[in-house]
Amino acid sequence: MSDIWPHHFAWRVEGRVGVVTFDRPERKNPLTFESYRELTDTFVALREARDVRAVVLTGAEGNFCSGGDVHEIIGPLVAMKRAGDDAGLLAFTRMTGDLVKAMRACPLPIVAAVDGACAGAGAILAMASDLRIGTARSRVAFLFARVGLSGADMGACAMLPRMIGFGRATDLLLTGRDMKGDEAQQCGFYNRLAAPESLLDDALALARSLADGPAAAHAVTKRCLHEEWDMDIESAIDHEAREQAACMRHEDFERAYHAFVEKRAPDFRGD
Amino acid sequence: MSDIWPHHFAWRVEGRVGVVTFDRPERKNPLTFESYRELTDTFVALREARDVRAVVLTGAEGNFCSGGDVHEIIGPLVAMKRAGDDAGLLAFTRMTGDLVKAMRACPLPIVAAVDGACAGAGAILAMASDLRIGTARSRVAFLFARVGLSGADMGACAMLPRMIGFGRATDLLLTGRDMKGDEAQQCGFYNRLAAPESLLDDALALARSLADGPAAAHAVTKRCLHEEWDMDIESAIDHEAREQAACMRHEDFERAYHAFVEKRAPDFRGD
Amino acid sequence: MSDIWPHHFAWRVEGRVGVVTFDRPERKNPLTFESYRELTDTFVALREARDVRAVVLTGAEGNFCSGGDVHEIIGPLVAMKRAGDDAGLLAFTRMTGDLVKAMRACPLPIVAAVDGACAGAGAILAMASDLRIGTARSRVAFLFARVGLSGADMGACAMLPRMIGFGRATDLLLTGRDMKGDEAQQCGFYNRLAAPESLLDDALALARSLADGPAAAHAVTKRCLHEEWDMDIESAIDHEAREQAACMRHEDFERAYHAFVEKRAPDFRGD
Repeated sequence: MSDIWPHHFAWRVEGRVGVVTFDRPERKNPLTFESYRELTDTFVALREARDVRAVVLTGAEGNFCSGGDVHEIIGPLVAMKRAGDDAGLLAFTRMTGDLVKAMRACPLPIVAAVDGACAGAGAILAMASDLRIGTARSRVAFLFARVGLSGADMGACAMLPRMIGFGRATDLLLTGRDMKGDEAQQCGFYNRLAAPESLLDDALALARSLADGPAAAHAVTKRCLHEEWDMDIESAIDHEAREQAACMRHEDFERAYHAFVEKRAPDFRGD
Repeated sequence: MSDIWPHHFAWRVEGRVGVVTFDRPERKNPLTFESYRELTDTFVALREARDVRAVVLTGAEGNFCSGGDVHEIIGPLVAMKRAGDDAGLLAFTRMTGDLVKAMRACPLPIVAAVDGACAGAGAILAMASDLRIGTARSRVAFLFARVGLSGADMGACAMLPRMIGFGRATDLLLTGRDMKGDEAQQCGFYNRLAAPESLLDDALALARSLADGPAAAHAVTKRCLHEEWDMDIESAIDHEAREQAACMRHEDFERAYHAFVEKRAPDFRGD
Repeated sequence: MSDIWPHHFAWRVEGRVGVVTFDRPERKNPLTFESYRELTDTFVALREARDVRAVVLTGAEGNFCSGGDVHEIIGPLVAMKRAGDDAGLLAFTRMTGDLVKAMRACPLPIVAAVDGACAGAGAILAMASDLRIGTARSRVAFLFARVGLSGADMGACAMLPRMIGFGRATDLLLTGRDMKGDEAQQCGFYNRLAAPESLLDDALALARSLADGPAAAHAVTKRCLHEEWDMDIESAIDHEAREQAACMRHEDFERAYHAFVEKRAPDFRGD
């Protein structure tokens, strides 16, 4: 995506992996109104990407993302509240929700590489990714209650219970407490742990292996996980019969078969 | 809640935490027709509580609750069955379901403190709480199959799979077997374990910390967890945008901001 | 079920437990078009079984099932793809989905005993069982991505997230990687682990204990777990009030009560 030139986070492409880096390390990489919008625009633009097949989301210098900046986001929201600007508040929460929608609607696998602080909206962005690699020292906190807000933020009350269980999600959302890496891995929030010094390499390797896979089929997997969220089992089975039959018309399916018969690794091309 | 004077369990208020204690220890604290009704009435009354902000549910003398009393509940139900009193049986199961509905509709966080026996309807009441602290020696048993009934009791077939996973829930509901504390903690039924001697103190401390939090926001978190149970992701995100924007109009949100800027702990008041 | 005489897997009845054994060990027990159909017919026939009360699903000689045979299934599907036979592809994926539907609609508890390879459609059949006992050395792989297909196969994108969590399911379905026994047990895919030499005995013992239980009530438990999959909590509670009241009209409920009063084990008969 040579046409993505964000101002509020760093973007680079390594091979076929796009890397988003939150890069205001002096404040633990907070989000601002502008970075929310640019991130959303980026994930929307990636829907049409040809040269990028997977995305890594990470933060600079030992922290993932500290969430909405206190001075640049919370302060202005409190000012809106005092001014009775209900429309302004709603416009903000809708904008943040649009980012999660854009991540879920993006057909590319998104791998979050999480070290250090992963708090508030930062924890949401990790949750909204498809896969998460964390470090033992990282701290995930859905800390909304600690700033006087509800855990009903950007879809957390729907998505977190499905990821780690209803009871554990209730705990994290009501208390706003920190969750360390071991707990996050054991409960299924992190898919795996890495040492801080190899975290980014591990995430890039995972993203690369997905980028080398059957891209169109991967997009179907991600979309069906999303679409079958609240579908009954029979409907989901019927839905998958149609979707998988369509995947059998992909060239990558035939390539994999020939590779197997010839005892070599398949060369997926994404069509 | 000076107006709650139950006859079939003990009720006291410590600070802003209400404590329900099942207190027929000689029978491991069974439920009766009367205690079901009184519990439901209590949770309905707590919807309007001003002085109580969190609830602890516990049992006297080393057991949580052994479920429906064999002589006072099962015996009369068998008599109804023999008399062909289908309406009476349905009235009973509806009454038990009403208790779970009242617990889920209560805006206050409910913390179950579980030691010893936690069986049948007792296990359901732990499940229907928001948070659960258990002991290693406690035994949770959804033992309906062992008394000839189904696991389809008071919402267990819906709620238990979301808490501990579909496969584990199937196991507990079909076999009716005991689950010890370690397993219950690892699978996400218990949020944490405590020693028997500190269990109640730990539960009270957790309830107190929630009672000291942003009460109105906590109620939104609990309600959204409930409402988004079977909602698609996009709808849930839209729902949370509206709910969180409304929370930003709370005074507690502004209080938390000023406290942060002034580097002190926020003083939440629940409005 | 003396009237089940399959040609493409082994079938025997031990007491009241039916045992399905995938038995092409020289190829790690793959599935074929014929075995899909016969399995579906078997689970449909078992709906009316009187003498069989539980089912064990296992594989011969150290492997569970390697999934769709490369030569007998994948090859013909690639030929259909090349011929533009979209209807043939859809007929296949519908047929495979029909097997999962038949397993979920079968009122009998199904216990999968999993050793060695459990791959592709084999992993799906383990997932579609009610309970799973595995070995440490077994390898579960939803390997569809590795053959160029999506994880949207036979309901996996709906069912796997509910069993092991959304994040873990995304990992297994996107990467297609092997999951060893310890991980499968910790994440809730396996209900328990057994040594390879005792695996089948353990599965038979579990199936026998379920076969000795209240069959009609067990069928209600399984059906309600299925029906309440995407039901809101209030509706699920109402549903269970009706279902459990109906179970209280079963003779097994009265038998269990009398057994309890007389301090002996109940003798369930399934009515």
